[in-house]
Amino acid sequence: MKARVFVTLKPGVLDPQGKAIQHSVELLGYGGIADIRQGKYFEIALESSLEQDEARETATRMAREVLSNPVIEDYRVEISE
Amino acid sequence: MKARVFVTLKPGVLDPQGKAIQHSVELLGYGGIADIRQGKYFEIALESSLEQDEARETATRMAREVLSNPVIEDYRVEISE
Repeated sequence: MKARVFVTLKPGVLDPQGKAIQHSVELLGYGGIADIRQGKYFEIALESSLEQDEARETATRMAREVLSNPVIEDYRVEISE
Repeated sequence: MKARVFVTLKPGVLDPQGKAIQHSVELLGYGGIADIRQGKYFEIALESSLEQDEARETATRMAREVLSNPVIEDYRVEISE
């Protein structure tokens, strides 16, 4: 069982790292870029003994309590076999 | 048009950051975790004048040339409306 967790800054929060990347790619000549925001991505391999519900619950709790800062970040969890 | 780029370390490459997170969550009492690997995640907003093919081509080129290090990292690009 595998969980994928995406952590992104909440929409109103300034993202200087994303802005720096956007500025760089524009200098490099890439066109048509309206905005770039950087987030974090975690691939969590869960032991196969876990049921899908347990896996989702563990990954979601981990995303909320450890992997993200709920003040400024949102998270999304996907579970796959 | 929105592109989402996922950058992950290639399978054989050591991920000390992921290992540190795994160690921490185990100390915090989370069970059933076999492995954690950290990657990067980029949300790229593309101007709506771009066709889907152009958007995919731009995002893929950017992922290959700027957002990832092809020696140690893999990337994946998803395009959505």
